[in-house]
Amino acid sequence: MIRIVIIGGGNVATHLAKAFNKTKEASLVQVYARKNIQLEPFKDFTATTNSLELLKDADVYIIAVADGAITNVSSKIKKKSSLVVHTSGSVSMDALKNKGRKGVFYLLQSFSKTKEVNFNDIPFCLEAENKNDLELLEKLAKLIGKNIYHINSKQRKSLHVAAVFVNNFTNHMYKIGADICKEHQVPFEVLQPLIKETALKIKELAPDKAQTGPAKRNDQETIKNHLKLLNKKQQEIYQLITKSIQNDGKKL
Amino acid sequence: MIRIVIIGGGNVATHLAKAFNKTKEASLVQVYARKNIQLEPFKDFTATTNSLELLKDADVYIIAVADGAITNVSSKIKKKSSLVVHTSGSVSMDALKNKGRKGVFYLLQSFSKTKEVNFNDIPFCLEAENKNDLELLEKLAKLIGKNIYHINSKQRKSLHVAAVFVNNFTNHMYKIGADICKEHQVPFEVLQPLIKETALKIKELAPDKAQTGPAKRNDQETIKNHLKLLNKKQQEIYQLITKSIQNDGKKL
Repeated sequence: MIRIVIIGGGNVATHLAKAFNKTKEASLVQVYARKNIQLEPFKDFTATTNSLELLKDADVYIIAVADGAITNVSSKIKKKSSLVVHTSGSVSMDALKNKGRKGVFYLLQSFSKTKEVNFNDIPFCLEAENKNDLELLEKLAKLIGKNIYHINSKQRKSLHVAAVFVNNFTNHMYKIGADICKEHQVPFEVLQPLIKETALKIKELAPDKAQTGPAKRNDQETIKNHLKLLNKKQQEIYQLITKSIQNDGKKL
Repeated sequence: MIRIVIIGGGNVATHLAKAFNKTKEASLVQVYARKNIQLEPFKDFTATTNSLELLKDADVYIIAVADGAITNVSSKIKKKSSLVVHTSGSVSMDALKNKGRKGVFYLLQSFSKTKEVNFNDIPFCLEAENKNDLELLEKLAKLIGKNIYHINSKQRKSLHVAAVFVNNFTNHMYKIGADICKEHQVPFEVLQPLIKETALKIKELAPDKAQTGPAKRNDQETIKNHLKLLNKKQQEIYQLITKSIQNDGKKL
């Protein structure tokens, strides 16, 4: 039985607590959050505290707090014989300042409070200082999920930037598409199937092979016509990404 | 029975011919393509020709050729009592120069030759000079699909630009993500679930509400760290889109 304490009251903490609570091989012994109100949802199924002085004994402490708070929170975990992990994509393992062993338990997905999470779809990116702890984290991950990767701090940072492009920036492309639709009284839903197809296509085809469109085929006529329909801000983005697609594969 | 002639030997022509050939209420009477080799796949199930002089009589001629060839090809269709439509997202209806009635039968999806097409997932964007023809096109569309929209030439052009953002430019975001992964020896597949989730999320949540990430929350520390990991070209894109996300909602 692996004893777990979860530290944090946000989305990741909530979804992890619920998932571990359902497993038989792990025991969620406590949840810590700063504010009492954050602890309410956990009170039905586990012990809670708002004091880091009152943490119960556990094998693994999972810190799921804001990036900037990881160092401070971890420094207050005095358990020398326990493993402490954080769940951040952009913070190094050595930002942890607990007395005992350190690791990372990063779930690469964007969580929202209301939406149910299917952990089987989520990549678990694991890191630890030694092989035994990595195996322990792997065991934990396998209790709730199945896509498990060993990713070191440097790799994880690059993955986090890559995620900004494929998630945040892609969403902004959707936003601009929606703005253009709105301006011309076209329902944005018309674009939904294309958006879905674009995302699913690269499961079979690498993004460079999947690239199509006026930039790729250097269709200056269409590019010119498109630019006329856009506002200044949209034009700037259109031109920069068009240039980037055209330069792809060329030596710069 | 609606008699159809398809003009073109590319992906759209091929998928449309196959789909209409399966319906009982439409009859695919002929396929035209410039080169004999393009006609081979059609010879099993319909008449073919490589001469626009030898087009058979039909109710609707569907032109699925390169944008730049639409005017020329349509001018050679002498049938005065037929409806001629093109299938392009970026060409006006009045680019058609046939003697008879005109319309547009635009399928908003990216087609590839090898991949099977599910027409039920594809939006049909229809336009015609008069109500009767619009109804005729609607009838045709309903034979093979179900998502039908009336979209005029101006709207269609804006939709086509929007599609460049949500498809071509989004795919380029995937490409940059893949480049970053490759450089740091991380398998790109780790990002697949996030890519899928990002695309599916906006079915329930408008893109402006779905926006997350360091740009959105103005996390300068993370942005600074991300920029350090990128090359010059990637930095330029990162900064421009970050700025655009941050300016969103502000009056410019």
